[in-house]
Order: sequence, then structure tokens, then C-alpha cells
Amino acid sequence: TRNIDLAVVAGDGIGTEVVEQGLAILDAAVAGSDIKVSTTEFDLGARRWHATGETLTETDLQRIREHDAILLGAIGDPTVPSGVLERGLLLKLRFALDHYVNLRPGKLYEGVTSPLAQPGDVDFVVVREGTEGPYVGNGGSVRTGTPHEIATEVSVNTAFGVERVVRDAFARAQARPRQHLTLVHKHNVLVHAGHLWRRTVEAVNADFPDVTTDYLHVDAATIFLTTNPSRFDVIVTDNLFGDILTDQAAAITGGIGLAASANINPDRTAPSMFEPVHGSAPDIAGQGKADPTATVLSVSLLLEHLGLADEARRVEAAVAADLAGRGDTVRTTAEVGRDLAARVAG
Amino acid sequence: TRNIDLAVVAGDGIGTEVVEQGLAILDAAVAGSDIKVSTTEFDLGARRWHATGETLTETDLQRIREHDAILLGAIGDPTVPSGVLERGLLLKLRFALDHYVNLRPGKLYEGVTSPLAQPGDVDFVVVREGTEGPYVGNGGSVRTGTPHEIATEVSVNTAFGVERVVRDAFARAQARPRQHLTLVHKHNVLVHAGHLWRRTVEAVNADFPDVTTDYLHVDAATIFLTTNPSRFDVIVTDNLFGDILTDQAAAITGGIGLAASANINPDRTAPSMFEPVHGSAPDIAGQGKADPTATVLSVSLLLEHLGLADEARRVEAAVAADLAGRGDTVRTTAEVGRDLAARVAG
Ligand SMILES: CC(C)[C@H](C(=O)O)[C@@H](O)C(=O)O
Ligand SMILES: CC(C)[C@H](C(=O)O)[C@@H](O)C(=O)O
Repeated sequence: TRNIDLAVVAGDGIGTEVVEQGLAILDAAVAGSDIKVSTTEFDLGARRWHATGETLTETDLQRIREHDAILLGAIGDPTVPSGVLERGLLLKLRFALDHYVNLRPGKLYEGVTSPLAQPGDVDFVVVREGTEGPYVGNGGSVRTGTPHEIATEVSVNTAFGVERVVRDAFARAQARPRQHLTLVHKHNVLVHAGHLWRRTVEAVNADFPDVTTDYLHVDAATIFLTTNPSRFDVIVTDNLFGDILTDQAAAITGGIGLAASANINPDRTAPSMFEPVHGSAPDIAGQGKADPTATVLSVSLLLEHLGLADEARRVEAAVAADLAGRGDTVRTTAEVGRDLAARVAG
Repeated sequence: TRNIDLAVVAGDGIGTEVVEQGLAILDAAVAGSDIKVSTTEFDLGARRWHATGETLTETDLQRIREHDAILLGAIGDPTVPSGVLERGLLLKLRFALDHYVNLRPGKLYEGVTSPLAQPGDVDFVVVREGTEGPYVGNGGSVRTGTPHEIATEVSVNTAFGVERVVRDAFARAQARPRQHLTLVHKHNVLVHAGHLWRRTVEAVNADFPDVTTDYLHVDAATIFLTTNPSRFDVIVTDNLFGDILTDQAAAITGGIGLAASANINPDRTAPSMFEPVHGSAPDIAGQGKADPTATVLSVSLLLEHLGLADEARRVEAAVAADLAGRGDTVRTTAEVGRDLAARVAG
């Protein structure tokens, strides 16, 4: 028997609902095999913060580190000041566990209606850097609240940090049929960071000669995501541009209800974390309205990361079949989960 | 007679072609009135840089300052290293002339096909801050080109700079039928800059009680621009987010061939600058293929800024009528210009 020790951070709002279904599908995927999944729930998020003032303690982090992977639902609530849980919990996990590859597929499944009139065959993956850029929390303000306030945000980029994520993106591009990598940045304005990224892509390309590359400014990338998304295969980009582009990518492929993500530590020095791109959606929380599909697709990425490629494919195939037959039927969160579990078992 | 002294920076690539038509439409708009337009051409851009190594000298800037407004075509060429003309010329003009309001309408005209299946009634305007944020050029790199390189980019935001552009955006929102203002930022991650923007919008709202406001993170804004762009009325945002969102806005409203922009100094301490959102498009330069419409709509914004509201409306109406009747006909740059001039005269 192989044991998978999973840390579960259901989090806030619809997080609990979608994670419940994600776990059920995970169970269905390994049922009948010699794989045992054991889960430890972590009480993190708005409730904990209101009760204790804590976001993520060193003890939490140490305990989480002992797991093989993390499944995360959603973090955030309007009752918590903006930034507290994002910086103190979600981003702290990504940074502390060195999730430098934030992987976000942009795939338009059959049966899914895109808001684009002619989306074409959309199947790309964004490799978003996860531990640098404008997300480092390196900024501040002086004379805050006065007419003389100055607020700064510093984007920090290192050769070390850029090279490792670029290398990962090249490897992913090489393994895909089209073998194409697009760097997205804004090197005509952010010249220092941008040229570091550009030079790094050029240099690493030497080790992946089969991969063709091109470059787009981030503003132009939003145009192509609108007019010709099928042109993309693998996109590599910085933390903030990746945040923006992957929400747009989710929008054109059927919405954030379907968008999966993996926060990967490729060196496996700490557990990787799998989470839907969507947030806690307090407006629909507790009503059984949330679509668990994004979480289920994140579970597929989790299985893949743990080396369970067949199980990963079965979960993705179940989602693909479900989406293809979905039509206009409205199902509850639990119903979608039940149908997906049946397909995975089937 | 009223004299309008216009500085003309045709620039690179298709810049020359579209500016020629823009000027012809400007002439048509004031023909028969007591307004005289005189133009001074400035040789700025790739050609000048190759010949002299200069991007924008103090003398150029002084001479440009003496004009009432600037019409700019496009800046940039692949033969010039990325960043040189952007930072040394285009952004230098915006910063030196204190163009703190970068105004970019996002309007889907009748007859224009949007790549969105159901775009709805799209008519918003983005007020992009033009003199701060990540565009200030405050960054650098150390150990450049080595495995230990660190590159930073600093976003600088001041209460002074944010308040003046927010105030301008509120005034524009108040003057529009829907009176709605959306702040776009990322205050859950860029907490210092983001909260300065948020607090400023809240404070300035007191002076514009009729204007309703809401807030979107930049990633969510790209979703709504895809799924429900008609929800937007006025968007106010920082320099970089504005750059990204306005290209996406152009894409959903028919492409950058139609997207106008105005770099406005509302205090009129220096001339404002009007330019299409598109770049120099070297791939189609010199072939008469460029659509001059974005430049012509920028001329409409120029007329508006100079207090010539009737003339501005006539130019915009000419464009609207042209677009409504356009169908699939392919015309050259000059033919579109000629047809627009006829409508303006007509
Ligand atoms: C909640 C927020 C901090 C987060 C981010 O900006 O990365 C989210 O938008 C995402 O994309 O996972
Ligand atoms: C050319 C570039 C510097 C410029 C910008 O980033 O502002 C352009 O993209 C624009 O939007 O006008």
C-alpha cells in the first residue's frame, strides 16, 4: 500500500463545498487500488482569524510540511480586511513552500460555451512564476493617510528564480505536441525585470532546441487571448501577469468554475498545493450552487504530480465527459460531484 | 480667427500613414470656420535615433511645449532595442508633459463585429493614470547577466498623483448618464499602493455624491471585460493595469485599429497628446493597409480637449457612420481617410 497524506485547507465560503467533492473524487480515483488517502484538515481562513487573530502559524506550517500534498478550497471573506488572508495565508503558503511553478491550464472542453464567438481549439497552459515579482510583499508607504503619502510596491526578480521557472516551462513545452513557448512580460517598460526574463528564455532555449519561442507584451497577450487563443501552447510569465492572464484564460474557457491550478514545488522540498482558481464566492456560499469542477480538475493535477498519471487521466476524462453532456441542466455541487464520482468509478 | 498650433509626431511604421489621414480629417472638421490649424512636424522615433542616437532632446521638448496639442502616430521599431524609444520618447513625453490622465474609450460601434459572442452595449471609458505606478522607471539590476542577478521594478504611487486622476475620473463619471465609477487595482496583494487607491476613491466620492462606485481586482476585471463588458461606465486604474485593460478593451470592441487615446494634462500646464492605442505595426507599414480610424477618433478627442465640442462630435459621427456601413469592403488607409473626410465635410 502506498499512503498519500493530504493536508486539506477547505478555507472559506464555497471552499468547504467544493473540497468535499474534490475529496470524494480523489477517493473514487484510487478506490480498488493499493493507494490509501488520509487527510488532515487545517482550520485556516476567515473563521480562524476572527477567533484567534492567526492566519498561518509556524506550527501550522510545520504540520502542513509533513504532508505529501495540499488540497485548498478558497481563502477570503469580506469581513476580513483585504490583504490579511491573501498575504498572511494563501501567499504565505505559496512562498514558504516554494511553489515557484503556478500551473494553470487554459482548455476549452467540448460542450462548454465560450463567451468568444469563435474560440477555436483552445488548449494551453500558463506557467506563472509563484515566488517573486510584485508579489514579494516588498513595499510600503510613508506619511500614510496624508496628502503627502507615498506608497511603493517593489517587484523583485532574480536570475535564480526566473531561470528555474523558465526551465520548467520549457520542459512542459517540450513534452507537448506543439512544443511552443510564449514569454509574456512588458520589457519595453519594465526594462530591468523584462530583460532578465527575455535573456533567460533565450539562454535556456539552448537546452531545449525543439521548442520554438515567441514573445508578447502583456497588453498584446490580452488581445490574442480574445482574438486567437488557440495560438498559445505554453505561456511563461511573472507572478502578476500570470494572475491577470489566467483569470482571462478562465473566462474564455467557460469561467472560473472550471479553472484548475497547481502550485508546484518541482524540487519536492515541500508539498505542492492544488486549488481552484476561483475564490470563496461568499454570495453563493452554503447554497450548493458552486461548481466543484475546478477543484476536481485540480485533483487531477494533484494525482499527476504524485505520479498517478492513469488516475489523473481518469479524473480529467470524467470531467470532460460530464462537460460534454452537461447542456443546460442545473445541478447542485453535490450532484455534480456524485456524477463525476460515478464516471471515475465507472 | 483662432489658431491651433499642433505638434505632429508621426513617428514610425504606420504612424506616418495614419497621421496623414488624421490631419486631413482635422482640416475637414475646421474647414469653413475661423479656426486655422498650423502644424509643426517633429522628426522623432527610430529614424532619428538611428541617425543621431537621440530620442527626445531638451530642445525638442521645449519646442513641443510651445504648441496647443500633439498628434502622435506610433513609436517603435524592431531595429531599436526594446525600451529605448518607449522610455526615451513616448513615456518621456507623457511624464514630462504631465499627462496624468490617459483617457481610453472602449466603445463598440454599430457595424463593428466584436470577437465576443454577446458583447452587449459596450460604452465605457478607462481613465488610466499616466505619470506614476510601475511606469516611473524606478528600478534596476545588479550582477546583471550573472546567475546572481537581481532585477527590481518599483511602482511609485503618491496621494497627490492618485487623487488628481481619481478626481478627474469622478468628474467624467458624473457627466455620463450612468454615473458609475469602477476602481481596478489589486489591493489584496499590492496592499500599499492598492489601499492608497481605495482610500482615495472613498474620500473623493464625498465630492461626487451622485457617482456610484465599485471595486474590482484587475484579474476579475479581465473576466468581466469578457463576460459582461456593458457593466462598465468609467474605470479608473493605475498605469500598468490601464495599459493591460485598454488593450483588452480594444480587442473586444473591434481591435486596436479602432482604439483612440488621449494623454491629457488637465491643468493645461503643457500640451496634451492624442494617439491611437496601436503601435507602429512594421509588418504592414508602407502598404496602405493601416486603418486610420483610431487616429481619427483620437483627433475627435483632441478637438474635444480644445473646446471644439461640435467639431469633435462631427468627427466621431463620421467614424460611427463609416463603421456602420463598412461591411466587408477593404479600403486603403487613404480611402478610409477620404471617405471620413467626405462625411465630416458633408
Ligand atoms: C487571492 C489572490 C491573492 C490570488 C492571487 O493573486 O494570486 C488569486 O487571485 C489567484 O490567482 O490565485
Ligand atoms: C508602447 C508602450 C510603452 C505603451 C504603454 O505601455 O503605455 C503602449 O502599450 C500604450 O498602451 O500606449
